[in-house]
Amino acid sequence: MTTGKDFTSDNASGAAPAILEALARANSGTALAYGDDPHTAQLTERLSEIFEHDVAVFPMFTGTAANALALSCVVPPFGAIFCHRRAHIYTSECGAPEFYTDGAKLIGLDGEGARIDPSELESAIAALGKGVTHHFQPAALSLTQATECGTLYTAASIRALSTIAHDNGLKVHMDGARFANAIAAQGVKPADITWKAGVDVLSLGVTKNGALAAEAVVFFDQSLADQARFRQKRAGQVASKMRFVSAQLLAMFKDGLWLDLAAHANAMAHRLGQAAASSGIALAFSAEINEVFLKLDRGAADRLRADGFAFHSWDPEPREGACTYRFGTSFATETADVDQLKMALARLKG
Amino acid sequence: MTTGKDFTSDNASGAAPAILEALARANSGTALAYGDDPHTAQLTERLSEIFEHDVAVFPMFTGTAANALALSCVVPPFGAIFCHRRAHIYTSECGAPEFYTDGAKLIGLDGEGARIDPSELESAIAALGKGVTHHFQPAALSLTQATECGTLYTAASIRALSTIAHDNGLKVHMDGARFANAIAAQGVKPADITWKAGVDVLSLGVTKNGALAAEAVVFFDQSLADQARFRQKRAGQVASKMRFVSAQLLAMFKDGLWLDLAAHANAMAHRLGQAAASSGIALAFSAEINEVFLKLDRGAADRLRADGFAFHSWDPEPREGACTYRFGTSFATETADVDQLKMALARLKG
Amino acid sequence: MTTGKDFTSDNASGAAPAILEALARANSGTALAYGDDPHTAQLTERLSEIFEHDVAVFPMFTGTAANALALSCVVPPFGAIFCHRRAHIYTSECGAPEFYTDGAKLIGLDGEGARIDPSELESAIAALGKGVTHHFQPAALSLTQATECGTLYTAASIRALSTIAHDNGLKVHMDGARFANAIAAQGVKPADITWKAGVDVLSLGVTKNGALAAEAVVFFDQSLADQARFRQKRAGQVASKMRFVSAQLLAMFKDGLWLDLAAHANAMAHRLGQAAASSGIALAFSAEINEVFLKLDRGAADRLRADGFAFHSWDPEPREGACTYRFGTSFATETADVDQLKMALARLKG
Amino acid sequence: MTTGKDFTSDNASGAAPAILEALARANSGTALAYGDDPHTAQLTERLSEIFEHDVAVFPMFTGTAANALALSCVVPPFGAIFCHRRAHIYTSECGAPEFYTDGAKLIGLDGEGARIDPSELESAIAALGKGVTHHFQPAALSLTQATECGTLYTAASIRALSTIAHDNGLKVHMDGARFANAIAAQGVKPADITWKAGVDVLSLGVTKNGALAAEAVVFFDQSLADQARFRQKRAGQVASKMRFVSAQLLAMFKDGLWLDLAAHANAMAHRLGQAAASSGIALAFSAEINEVFLKLDRGAADRLRADGFAFHSWDPEPREGACTYRFGTSFATETADVDQLKMALARLKG
Repeated sequence: MTTGKDFTSDNASGAAPAILEALARANSGTALAYGDDPHTAQLTERLSEIFEHDVAVFPMFTGTAANALALSCVVPPFGAIFCHRRAHIYTSECGAPEFYTDGAKLIGLDGEGARIDPSELESAIAALGKGVTHHFQPAALSLTQATECGTLYTAASIRALSTIAHDNGLKVHMDGARFANAIAAQGVKPADITWKAGVDVLSLGVTKNGALAAEAVVFFDQSLADQARFRQKRAGQVASKMRFVSAQLLAMFKDGLWLDLAAHANAMAHRLGQAAASSGIALAFSAEINEVFLKLDRGAADRLRADGFAFHSWDPEPREGACTYRFGTSFATETADVDQLKMALARLKG
Repeated sequence: MTTGKDFTSDNASGAAPAILEALARANSGTALAYGDDPHTAQLTERLSEIFEHDVAVFPMFTGTAANALALSCVVPPFGAIFCHRRAHIYTSECGAPEFYTDGAKLIGLDGEGARIDPSELESAIAALGKGVTHHFQPAALSLTQATECGTLYTAASIRALSTIAHDNGLKVHMDGARFANAIAAQGVKPADITWKAGVDVLSLGVTKNGALAAEAVVFFDQSLADQARFRQKRAGQVASKMRFVSAQLLAMFKDGLWLDLAAHANAMAHRLGQAAASSGIALAFSAEINEVFLKLDRGAADRLRADGFAFHSWDPEPREGACTYRFGTSFATETADVDQLKMALARLKG
Repeated sequence: MTTGKDFTSDNASGAAPAILEALARANSGTALAYGDDPHTAQLTERLSEIFEHDVAVFPMFTGTAANALALSCVVPPFGAIFCHRRAHIYTSECGAPEFYTDGAKLIGLDGEGARIDPSELESAIAALGKGVTHHFQPAALSLTQATECGTLYTAASIRALSTIAHDNGLKVHMDGARFANAIAAQGVKPADITWKAGVDVLSLGVTKNGALAAEAVVFFDQSLADQARFRQKRAGQVASKMRFVSAQLLAMFKDGLWLDLAAHANAMAHRLGQAAASSGIALAFSAEINEVFLKLDRGAADRLRADGFAFHSWDPEPREGACTYRFGTSFATETADVDQLKMALARLKG
Repeated sequence: MTTGKDFTSDNASGAAPAILEALARANSGTALAYGDDPHTAQLTERLSEIFEHDVAVFPMFTGTAANALALSCVVPPFGAIFCHRRAHIYTSECGAPEFYTDGAKLIGLDGEGARIDPSELESAIAALGKGVTHHFQPAALSLTQATECGTLYTAASIRALSTIAHDNGLKVHMDGARFANAIAAQGVKPADITWKAGVDVLSLGVTKNGALAAEAVVFFDQSLADQARFRQKRAGQVASKMRFVSAQLLAMFKDGLWLDLAAHANAMAHRLGQAAASSGIALAFSAEINEVFLKLDRGAADRLRADGFAFHSWDPEPREGACTYRFGTSFATETADVDQLKMALARLKG
């Protein structure tokens, strides 16, 4: 269950033992299908506690579906969704948001470290022009916390962006595929960086965190949730044996498991970042969660691969010269795994 | 893990122990995400053996998604899909096929026991008129095996319907949510009632069969699969840790587990059907798989419920008078469960 | 400009001279594009007068688009639209409503003379079951006035159906492709059979009435119109030189032209119906507007065609035996045209 | 019929007299509805002559719909369409391409004068990565001829871009809303800058050219046209009295009317551009067709408006300082109109 030399992604790891145990426990007796089971009911209660707010919860199988479903509940087909150019919904979902929203437009914004620059957001909203029939209508802001570059939004920066959004009639969505890592890293309460900071709906992921396949769409503004279960059903995202999805989420949110696992993954990345720095290797972004972006020459990357390490290039990889490479850690990464990589990084200098 | 008095659905049962064991075994080391893992590769090989035909396989989370994805690969948005009025895609998917196909039309046909009558199919195709611009264009036939009424198509009847479909340029889809039950009941080879009988693409379900959440779209005509993985991705149906979906399917198709579980469920239903008959209760349809449809007075149904038995009405339930009720069995139903119900049915006569 | 022997459809006739004159008059100077022109502003005023109600108006090119746009403003993608099995939206628009609504479901109801039977509507709404996640959600009722069988709904019958719809949370749409014929035939005010009878949005057609290409979506409940102009734009239905569409509509609604043209068409059909009756030919439906449905033997139909008359079969035409044939009249049909047909019908008896 | 002081757009002008005359001529007798009429048949023949190639033709009402329909026939819902950031489909159609294609992605490229830079196209295709499941798949290139900045692609530059597209498996679409202006300006044959240069499908507009409302989708690769009429129908773009759309197009393509009207509009813009230059006013782009983009101070623009001239700002208009303003001419612009503006521009210097 260790990652060994595989630093491709937190998705490459399997599931935490507690998750499999929870599945085994949930596998007792019969339960009503399609979400009318006790585990799912309990999940809503538990998340309402976690977020200190009554929430509407829809357990899902994938983060892509969670994002797309959430967005489809808050934008019309002719709506514009503002996000960062590096956002997963913008770059890596093969059109899921466009599909679920029946044709809405994602508008990619700039900003350092995959964090949207507030002035970029303001300009982009103004450029469309509310009410101009020829243009997509500004409808939603989507923030990723933690970001695709492994950086974080502070509560204050989320509030600043949300305020611009709300002032212009937009709803605010948060892609929380690595939400646990963000909470663990910032030491804030879940409420602080969500509804208290203006987030209307959250895609809450625990798969990367150590589950098999479990995500949830969490509505803080429950009036937005009216259509959710019908949209979820027509998307083929309502599990017949939903208890098994809910049980994974419940296990994560019991006794702080989600934060323990995330804190470990974060710590491993921190250690990896320090190792890189000590070898004189620059980090493209500050390593705030469980991802480290190293600037390496293509030749150095090839030598690491020859050593058996696996990782992804973050930008199109050149034949030679410098490139940014992403190294991901997970709940399953062990100190020895990182130290093994540390030694290999040190050898690159030689 | 027994059903006790719960006969609502095979979906009400949990997972077979072998499935959880398979998950635990699959939870070892890292694996490439999104389907590039060894389990998924092995699944394609295994299903090619099972079906005696090279197949393209797409592991999915739900049967609704599998049906909708399969159909979206074989019909244009202006296509008509012919199915039985009782078909799950027609009655119970809240528009998933319409969503995935971007607006295609399901046309419900009649036929005894939820089996499409070939002459109904011929008339319906003719009524639309190929090439008439005002009309949806005949594009696909969807058969459910076993049917929603717990009956079966013979290989010959599938071939008869497929021939009509192919002669008119339609593709043939099979909804195999209870495919295992059909194979176990008929004692035929999977190939016999699929590609050899003219089926182009199959939704192959093992969730009702005893998995947690695992289905697959199986293309026999691989030329139809070109778009599948992109459509699967945009639907949010590509598991990041796909090995855990594939592992469930592999476990089912190892050493005949899928058929053992299905045969047991079928046998329990058969026993239940005989018990009903011995109490003079009529069956609405012959109990060919793991579902028994009993004709009961509303009063009798209420007494069973008062006894703690759970089951669904099949048609809108009247205040009084006769109605058809569905009793489902599963891999987890025990003889004692059925015998308990048998005694209750016997008491109804008194 | 007469129809001669062509009774295929009112669409087969060209445009009334007054329409071409109106286009020539509108062709003066420049005007703001895309609907910000004086003609379009004036149209909203004029229709508000005609309907004795403030309305929101969206000029469109085709009736199919008008129907689909109207429906897309009142139903979600998982909504069910109840209409008659003979409704144009159900049979003849190649999926336009499904396309514009992003996948909503049309449910065809029965009822004599293409008029929906209220008890059919009630049953169909109940059968879906509001709130059942697996089912399309009841969302709209669509009535065609005049119907596809050339019959009419009375104000009272519209109100009865609307009441059922509204009581169940549905919106009411009217397909008024032949609305002028209905008003002319019934001698009622436009308000009587629309908003006063519970209609929320109307597709108001004047193309069949004698325009080149001009329809309008008319919202009585203006709160439903918020999305209309954006949906209209993305459908490619916002004319750049919209004044020319609006001018056609204005000309129709000036000095009662729409009713004069419709009354003439109706009268020609009435004359044709009497001619048929006097030759002992049965009418399949009462000829209440500008369409006459005659029951003829296939042989008789062939003889009429051999005489040069053109008309459509209403049902799939048999090789021999009786069939229903539709004969349409228009503003351009002349008494001599009908009398010529009358003589031919009389000859059939011989 | 002159534009006077209105330079907002060629869409602001009405219709050329020959168009109204053609409508009057077409308004004779009956014709089969929905495109089965002689005018429409003749149009296909005429355009095949004009383009020296057998073409499939679909008369449409608007350019937005023509673009969207054409694209929907050549890209899958998960396809990427490359176009210039200034392209009408990218900026001004409120999501029509996304709607008609069921969710495809428009990717805006850079390039001087609204002409796509070939290296931008190559990079963008490479960045998506053919076959990467997470990404939209490269599917089409859309060129605008003449461009939104009033500039032109040469035949050679079109061929260069088309070659890149075809080498990567993309289809090539041309938005020809001002195709006539391009042909008139370049003195080339229609074939030279379409199919001979690699264009697969053209949106051919004549509305801006001087018609009321008439566009056509023209397929050079007829194999791509199979779905077109069904998609056109479900979009509500099949005119019931299609002869009136086809008649407008036929009139344009008779005796070179389209080129005469376009040449006049172009000449008026050329005169306007020279007038600006003589007053020391810079042109943002070379005035190659019927649009002139002037760089003016906000104050100067306000003075022109105070003089009664109407025109649009091309970029968001600042409170003060320089901005680019678009002045459009049309078939109806008269020399005196331009000279009046010339005098006003000269006065700005004082």
